[in-house]
Amino acid sequence: MKRDLYLLPANQAVDGICTGQFSSEELTEACLARIEETDKAIRAWAFVDPCAALAQAREMDLIRKAGRATGPLHGVPVGLKDIIDTVDMPTQRGSEIFSGRRANADACIVERLREAGAVILGKTKTTEFAFVHPTDTSNPHDPSRSPGGSSSGSAAAVAAHQVPLAIGTQTNGSMIRPASFCGVYGFKPTRGVVSRRGVLQTSVSLDHIGGFARTLEDVALLCDVIGSYDPSDPNSFARPRPQMLQGAQAEVPVEPDIAWFDLPFNSRLDDDAREGLEAVISGLGGRVERFDAAPQMADLVAVQATIHEYEINLHQGHVFSAHWDQLSQTLQVAIERARQISSAQYEDALAVKLSCEAFFAKHFMDFDAILAPSATGEAPLLAANTTGDPVFCTFWTLAGLPSLNLPLLVGNNGLPVGVQLIGAAEEDDRLLRTAAWMQAVLAAGAETTET
Amino acid sequence: MKRDLYLLPANQAVDGICTGQFSSEELTEACLARIEETDKAIRAWAFVDPCAALAQAREMDLIRKAGRATGPLHGVPVGLKDIIDTVDMPTQRGSEIFSGRRANADACIVERLREAGAVILGKTKTTEFAFVHPTDTSNPHDPSRSPGGSSSGSAAAVAAHQVPLAIGTQTNGSMIRPASFCGVYGFKPTRGVVSRRGVLQTSVSLDHIGGFARTLEDVALLCDVIGSYDPSDPNSFARPRPQMLQGAQAEVPVEPDIAWFDLPFNSRLDDDAREGLEAVISGLGGRVERFDAAPQMADLVAVQATIHEYEINLHQGHVFSAHWDQLSQTLQVAIERARQISSAQYEDALAVKLSCEAFFAKHFMDFDAILAPSATGEAPLLAANTTGDPVFCTFWTLAGLPSLNLPLLVGNNGLPVGVQLIGAAEEDDRLLRTAAWMQAVLAAGAETTET
Repeated sequence: MKRDLYLLPANQAVDGICTGQFSSEELTEACLARIEETDKAIRAWAFVDPCAALAQAREMDLIRKAGRATGPLHGVPVGLKDIIDTVDMPTQRGSEIFSGRRANADACIVERLREAGAVILGKTKTTEFAFVHPTDTSNPHDPSRSPGGSSSGSAAAVAAHQVPLAIGTQTNGSMIRPASFCGVYGFKPTRGVVSRRGVLQTSVSLDHIGGFARTLEDVALLCDVIGSYDPSDPNSFARPRPQMLQGAQAEVPVEPDIAWFDLPFNSRLDDDAREGLEAVISGLGGRVERFDAAPQMADLVAVQATIHEYEINLHQGHVFSAHWDQLSQTLQVAIERARQISSAQYEDALAVKLSCEAFFAKHFMDFDAILAPSATGEAPLLAANTTGDPVFCTFWTLAGLPSLNLPLLVGNNGLPVGVQLIGAAEEDDRLLRTAAWMQAVLAAGAETTET
Repeated sequence: MKRDLYLLPANQAVDGICTGQFSSEELTEACLARIEETDKAIRAWAFVDPCAALAQAREMDLIRKAGRATGPLHGVPVGLKDIIDTVDMPTQRGSEIFSGRRANADACIVERLREAGAVILGKTKTTEFAFVHPTDTSNPHDPSRSPGGSSSGSAAAVAAHQVPLAIGTQTNGSMIRPASFCGVYGFKPTRGVVSRRGVLQTSVSLDHIGGFARTLEDVALLCDVIGSYDPSDPNSFARPRPQMLQGAQAEVPVEPDIAWFDLPFNSRLDDDAREGLEAVISGLGGRVERFDAAPQMADLVAVQATIHEYEINLHQGHVFSAHWDQLSQTLQVAIERARQISSAQYEDALAVKLSCEAFFAKHFMDFDAILAPSATGEAPLLAANTTGDPVFCTFWTLAGLPSLNLPLLVGNNGLPVGVQLIGAAEEDDRLLRTAAWMQAVLAAGAETTET
């Protein structure tokens, strides 16, 4: 039985550890054994130190046995995308430039995780600089497919039951897309909820941190733990954080109103994904209102790209220049393009971003959530050398809105296809409440259809 | 009625604000009016900016009205001892040397308070450098008496109902003693629970942060908010924090075992304090076991003084040297003495401190708490130019143990006399649970006696 502990979601694992049914050491051993067994094929991990992980686990077990305080993630292993600094492991950022690099301080979210009693299991593979050049990680559902990116290893590790929780980051679609391809929950809270101190900066305006898990409650629990005010992050706000887990467990006061935009990009959807999303809409019994997208919405893709590319060069240009030959060709091309962007173009893009935020703020006065695709369909083939198209994530990341992937659909090849739900800024709890309602309604509908 | 909001404890204030019974602005106005009305006599505040406080309060009201996340101290005013840095107010450390000084960053606990939705009302008066030279603050129960120190203003402001919560610090007896003199709860959590980043350093080994309130639950709530792991504080530990409020609200599983030490210093107790403590012991129905103090315990007072004086000179000696003429004579004498302490004497004192910690760790295997005096008796006269004798706090501060003042007794002059309860390291929740039990038992006993 203890051998199967790796199957447990995090909230059940915490309960089991805190009530003495099993130890953090046993759970951590089970996860390490699962990694040993499966990771030759999946390649989700950039670094795992079993001895260090087991030492953390034993410390959490001793604390519990001594009757001392336990935390909300007491003794539960967590994986960190390999752009998140820790003092006790390398952080190599998906680039040989940083091979063996060790940071001299933990990231802010690592402080929060340790304070919550989590066991830091290791670093999960990221695309080069969390940009687009793929890792060698494969999709746990089909080894010939991509897990998506840039948070490739985090999504794959959670999907493969190697770890119940993992941290990812998103600047465009780097969490929601891999969560969709790997069939797990991925949740990116509102901009400014989670501090980015100690995480590789690729875009001060667009970088977000979030979590992956196999249940809605777990992803909420994880984001409760990592959220905190930290003035060293310019986006961090000095206000209370939404209570994520409470949101995920809450009943809706009335049936939610949900919006769907008929976007110009919807033509990029695979047929099976389109049909699946239509089934979701009709399953929600008239709660979804359809809108034509405003014509200027299509321009936002270029706006995101301008900001992202200008800023990654602004923050990391000195590294790129010093190590040009060690960059992938994809990154070289992007940086050459970035260096052609004028500061005026960049400022214009930032102004559009602001107006986009204002547009959505107004929109959410009438709706509880936006329903959207998470990706174009099933995961692309590894041979295609792409982490997939992030276009269905771009707007919401640009506007800093909380976004959630729900692993609700299955494509024609039997691979997962996600559904995205987007909420109002700083109302992450309402988004999670709406998501829980949506899952329940669809599950009830499916039961009725079957019987 | 809104005029009387200043009377509410913090937990009721949060409830009232979050359920819309009254606003944070109204509560903050009531506290400001109370300060206006009473502080000419008490002089608890070094700095109050009513406009800034009301602006924070209105922001918290807007958040609530918008249905956004509220925090555990949502809209509740808090006072900060004037050695705790804030970006938006001066922090003057009780010395003209720092007149008008503004820090460029909030202290870590200020980040935690803002994240909890608290309103930072202002800075409360501290003795010079949080050492022994008194402020001009008077005791709210008798203007001819001292409020104690060094957290003079914080204890007095809470006692005078100017603010429901205030932060203090303790290096020897700087919270427990003023809490006893002012008749409020004072709670200093285990060393390392609360980060000291951004707080004047007087002793890296002995400085602690804690809170004042008028109820046990409030002081627990406040310390839940300010506790967090922060590696920039060398004492901060990377483990879960005890859940203070849960502790204060918990039922004891069995009747606790409490220890009392017959210390050589007990002869310094006033007769009324001694009688009051004896009544507490007998009121606890045989749960208190008396011990002779080990002879070496008397030496710990000198050990604390050696570490405290050596370290205040180590951390602040450059300031003292540069501004010698602006120091009080009391501080000059202490620093001259400190400069005679050899590093060998200091190292010896640190070694004794370690053995003292080990002694108490063993002790708490048999007992839930130590009962002790908080101070020698009622507050001294201001004319005596002393903040009172800290001797009954020295051991526990030295050992880093959680310590609580309960305002349970009244002296011969009708002034408050506190009772101190000390717990095991990192078992602050058990200490608070024991304290709640003790209060209830004594209250029930008092009722029986009356009827």
